[in-house]
Amino acid sequence: MGAPLFPQHVIARKRDGHELSRDELAAFVRGATDGSWADYQLSAMLMAIFLRGMTPQETAHYTAAMLHSGVVADLSSVKQPRADKHSTGGVGDKVSLHLAPMVAACGVAVPMISGRGLGHTGGTLDKLESIPGFNVNLSLAQYRRQVADIGLCLIGQTAELAPADRKLYALRDVTGTVECIPLICASILSKKLAEGTQVLVADVKYGRGAFMPEKARARELATALVRVAQAMGTPTRAVLTSMEQPLGRAIGNALEVRESIDCLQGHGPADTMEVTFALGEQMLLLAGAAKTAAEARRQLEQSLGNGAAREKFRAMIQAQGGNGAVIENPDLLPQARIRRPVASPANGFVQDVDPMAVAMAVLRLGGGRTNAEAAIDPAVGISDLVKVGEPVEAGAPLAVIHANDEAAAEEARAMLARAIVVGDSLVEPSALLGEMIS
Amino acid sequence: MGAPLFPQHVIARKRDGHELSRDELAAFVRGATDGSWADYQLSAMLMAIFLRGMTPQETAHYTAAMLHSGVVADLSSVKQPRADKHSTGGVGDKVSLHLAPMVAACGVAVPMISGRGLGHTGGTLDKLESIPGFNVNLSLAQYRRQVADIGLCLIGQTAELAPADRKLYALRDVTGTVECIPLICASILSKKLAEGTQVLVADVKYGRGAFMPEKARARELATALVRVAQAMGTPTRAVLTSMEQPLGRAIGNALEVRESIDCLQGHGPADTMEVTFALGEQMLLLAGAAKTAAEARRQLEQSLGNGAAREKFRAMIQAQGGNGAVIENPDLLPQARIRRPVASPANGFVQDVDPMAVAMAVLRLGGGRTNAEAAIDPAVGISDLVKVGEPVEAGAPLAVIHANDEAAAEEARAMLARAIVVGDSLVEPSALLGEMIS
Repeated sequence: MGAPLFPQHVIARKRDGHELSRDELAAFVRGATDGSWADYQLSAMLMAIFLRGMTPQETAHYTAAMLHSGVVADLSSVKQPRADKHSTGGVGDKVSLHLAPMVAACGVAVPMISGRGLGHTGGTLDKLESIPGFNVNLSLAQYRRQVADIGLCLIGQTAELAPADRKLYALRDVTGTVECIPLICASILSKKLAEGTQVLVADVKYGRGAFMPEKARARELATALVRVAQAMGTPTRAVLTSMEQPLGRAIGNALEVRESIDCLQGHGPADTMEVTFALGEQMLLLAGAAKTAAEARRQLEQSLGNGAAREKFRAMIQAQGGNGAVIENPDLLPQARIRRPVASPANGFVQDVDPMAVAMAVLRLGGGRTNAEAAIDPAVGISDLVKVGEPVEAGAPLAVIHANDEAAAEEARAMLARAIVVGDSLVEPSALLGEMIS
Repeated sequence: MGAPLFPQHVIARKRDGHELSRDELAAFVRGATDGSWADYQLSAMLMAIFLRGMTPQETAHYTAAMLHSGVVADLSSVKQPRADKHSTGGVGDKVSLHLAPMVAACGVAVPMISGRGLGHTGGTLDKLESIPGFNVNLSLAQYRRQVADIGLCLIGQTAELAPADRKLYALRDVTGTVECIPLICASILSKKLAEGTQVLVADVKYGRGAFMPEKARARELATALVRVAQAMGTPTRAVLTSMEQPLGRAIGNALEVRESIDCLQGHGPADTMEVTFALGEQMLLLAGAAKTAAEARRQLEQSLGNGAAREKFRAMIQAQGGNGAVIENPDLLPQARIRRPVASPANGFVQDVDPMAVAMAVLRLGGGRTNAEAAIDPAVGISDLVKVGEPVEAGAPLAVIHANDEAAAEEARAMLARAIVVGDSLVEPSALLGEMIS
């Protein structure tokens, strides 16, 4: 409709601080999808958006255009209500692995399409792939069928979903335009809303180990996610959670699956379960499966106590070609040749565990990737990690390193010895849960 | 020196408002020249510069890097002092054509490398090429020899000069990053300083017909040009001149050459000569060829009165393969088939001549180009144009249209009839010369 929108004119309007129309934003996204805007025009526009911002209305139009740049999964054949969660990512965050089957066991389907980790440690897909035989590369048809059958499917992004986001994300990565809240918001939501969920709960992390360390910025992102998703008709809440130390006691792909199995067996680490319940409660509430947080909590606890969550996990593993016996026998997961404790230098209390330093140690062991093509070693990582505030004795282990390479093990040990601070003061860990945005 | 500078990191530093170092700006410019920065990284950086600006120090480093991205002409073998002028361009601005030989006739060499016009009417090169046989495509060696021989050479940009500017200018044109003073400043100076001049006078135009209509912005550009060029060791002054009506009475390539010949013969239009003398005085002063403006003015007038400027022009035309007889016989210049007067609708005074509307009429006649590849008709244009404040009689010509196409002539006539306003009020044209920046 109207005159053709020349890229340089749309760019100049954003550059000069004007609010772009739905048509202008659609032209930009279409340009990214069909190549009618050159890469250098897309990147100039991204920089103009980075520096000029977008209003909530613009962000909603932009997100909608990104979402509809590809296929939106049609899950209308699924009988249960459908809920998903998204995490902005943190060190040791394996919550999706056990939370999804817990929620599914409570009668709410979880259609989850996930990304891979880059930098840091692995992503949810990498963790799942450490389960022998597990296939994350299903077609959308297989995905839809599995969500309908067992109420749970966890796969990687397919080429049909939000292709504009894939194009623009790759450009942002190399043009200094990643850390921009409207762009991040649209990138997250265009992928999440394409997967066919009805409601969404976002875990937005802040603190040293988070993608967005400042709490105020994390709150801004959380608010944008909630406002834009709601404007697009998807009831959404966001929970702010702290990432000042790793989540749980295990970091590394197979080691985190093992810890998630512990969670499903009812003996997960306290911090991990605190986040798990907080997110799960909101998923059940938003999906209409519980009337109060307490009721939701009871259902989630029950799903652990009666083994239903564990069986959902097994059903998903088996439906996706994996070996469900890992649940009873986690030793079927890949294991590293070398195990090496990191000894405490003194008696005292754990003062600090620096999450980024821990992530760097896991990366050094081969448990993460430094570029999109790098291979990942599923077996390596860290287990039995102490938590801030815990008492320790001189010589007792602060963590156990799992390595397949002697030099890497030794380097990781030195890195962890620096990352974990032991001292005399009695310290309280910072609160894990921040406010909820709805 | 130091760590390698990744494009996305340098971009992010400018994006966040930091002052870039000489090395960072050099990396950017080198990236544009050798392709080590992708086009989408260059354009993201250009947008970040557009929105964050550059300090005078950054602009100087950036300009120096652009200048040294290619060859800098070595004119040290030229015995005379060397001066050049640059105009930001306006409708009917043919001043370079006759000013350069005037200054050369005063003993100051003028090594002038010029661009082509885009949009509007033709550029200096287009005008010169309307002289039969005139060749603007000399090698740098030929250029150097001619400046040494006759103190005057006027050619087009060669591929060896400031290649980074050519690359970046093409990107700016399609990414909404043209109108940015530090970028404009660097683009102008990197080309001008590459030509081997010792001093520079800039004619920075403001008003409706100028590239930069607002006087405050024109002053900003003039100040940037002067400060940066001085910081780079080239004494430079800028004169602000008004472009509220076309300069002179002729617009169109051969028609402007004819008007420049009039100027050299001592009967140029008053406004054109006012600008010519203002710029020429500063060139002679900066080059040390005169001690006062009055003395410089006398020399310039003398160069007209004794025919020396005209003979310099002839020498240049002949050295560059053109027919010097055009000076005595301007009818040797290309002429259009159709001449059509635009009749005044009433008795009265010329209230206004809209320079952009006049330029559009010349463009319609085929005298300018809408894209870099378009051919130009050297013969067409407008002559005998009235000036603001002049009395006119009903039916007398306000201008004469020179066309090679009946439909175009008629359209141009209608356009001019709207562009030239006749009314009862006695009006004064706005002052032509603004302040000088030094």
